[in-house]
Amino acid sequence: MKVSPKLDVPGLKQGHFQIHDILMFEGIDASLLAAFEVASQHRHVAKGTVLYIQGDEAEWFHLIQSGWVKLFRETIEGSEAIVDVITRGHLFGENTVFENGCYSYSAQAVEDVELISFPTKLLKDSIEKDPKLATNMLQSMSRYRLQQHREIEHFNVQNAPQRIGCFLLRLILDAPEAPVTLHLPYDKTLIAGRLGMKPETFSRALAKLKEATNLRVHGSSVTIPSVSILADYVCSHCSNSFPCEE
Amino acid sequence: MKVSPKLDVPGLKQGHFQIHDILMFEGIDASLLAAFEVASQHRHVAKGTVLYIQGDEAEWFHLIQSGWVKLFRETIEGSEAIVDVITRGHLFGENTVFENGCYSYSAQAVEDVELISFPTKLLKDSIEKDPKLATNMLQSMSRYRLQQHREIEHFNVQNAPQRIGCFLLRLILDAPEAPVTLHLPYDKTLIAGRLGMKPETFSRALAKLKEATNLRVHGSSVTIPSVSILADYVCSHCSNSFPCEE
Repeated sequence: MKVSPKLDVPGLKQGHFQIHDILMFEGIDASLLAAFEVASQHRHVAKGTVLYIQGDEAEWFHLIQSGWVKLFRETIEGSEAIVDVITRGHLFGENTVFENGCYSYSAQAVEDVELISFPTKLLKDSIEKDPKLATNMLQSMSRYRLQQHREIEHFNVQNAPQRIGCFLLRLILDAPEAPVTLHLPYDKTLIAGRLGMKPETFSRALAKLKEATNLRVHGSSVTIPSVSILADYVCSHCSNSFPCEE
Repeated sequence: MKVSPKLDVPGLKQGHFQIHDILMFEGIDASLLAAFEVASQHRHVAKGTVLYIQGDEAEWFHLIQSGWVKLFRETIEGSEAIVDVITRGHLFGENTVFENGCYSYSAQAVEDVELISFPTKLLKDSIEKDPKLATNMLQSMSRYRLQQHREIEHFNVQNAPQRIGCFLLRLILDAPEAPVTLHLPYDKTLIAGRLGMKPETFSRALAKLKEATNLRVHGSSVTIPSVSILADYVCSHCSNSFPCEE
């Protein structure tokens, strides 16, 4: 789930998110918001730290302030499958309140990460108290569902360079005219895994995308000289136009 | 969203679903269920009929009794992207109540289809009245989200024959010892599209799957002689084992 678009502009906006910035908490009673604020914990997590393992009891859900987190599962044969690679403005672990109370995937900080963590028990109790919170979560999940439909659609209609471009565009929620520099995980194979590509396919596709849109990559920085050129290249093969409504 | 596993066994169980069979309505007040029953319409829809177009105002959501329905979107360039291909036991269109009240994709009957349709307005009003309905929907959407995570994971860790096998296994929610015959859409390119495969990749992969698991395909019928052999072949490359918990 994403926070309100007005704040979810990684690489463009500095500053900390707070509980009331999260779309899920929009319009929620101030005393309830205050309870979440009181119960929250700010955490600095070092690169490589495993935050939790799939199957662990879900005590906390988290909002990323900075850095990248990898969500993954292990297959029965023991290989790792990347579920998502997410960054500032994203919540994770909040869904456990509708499941069996355990994390359905593992989470690891792929670089130094700053988090705000909230108790899942408080969320579970609050949903019962405030129907607005349930409705907000339904809306967020519905948007998320559309976004995932879009991704499955993309396997069908977009080529690999376009899918990388789409991943980048989803990190920019408005359409600035000036060049945009994004901060990605240093290890690009994570993004390859996230997009269901083999690392060698990803490298070739990224080279093609750079050529087509003048993208520049330096270590963990990606500079997009023109968001509109990138959007033209990517979104012609999608049922949405940029910026995505969900 | 799926109905309760106990009834969602396409190709194995005959008979009609009713409102109280849908997991979303589990534990809901009897008078509210009765209101849905009274407002429902049974529909027989001929093959090829477009049920609605993306962007149409969403008056109805539907439960499939028999047949296959294609959900799709059009890209800006005009090609068709398959969002899903679904069959009996599946709901569609119910999510529109959390969106802007319009269908976010188009729907077409890919063969003769039998539906029960319910007014979305009644659902929207009922969610406000009965918090249990909101919680049920959150649970269903959460399961759906896990399932979609699993699919994105599969692009990474499963080969094409395994992904076809997984699609088939998801149509069987228990693990019978006897052979199972499933009814698929006659036009297999729909499933190819659903799985993000080119038709030629799909044909090669299906041939490989038949060889590995003794699967037999006759027109729109697929016979799985041993579900456990198919599950062994497919689920070793997944973080779940068969039958899937979601």
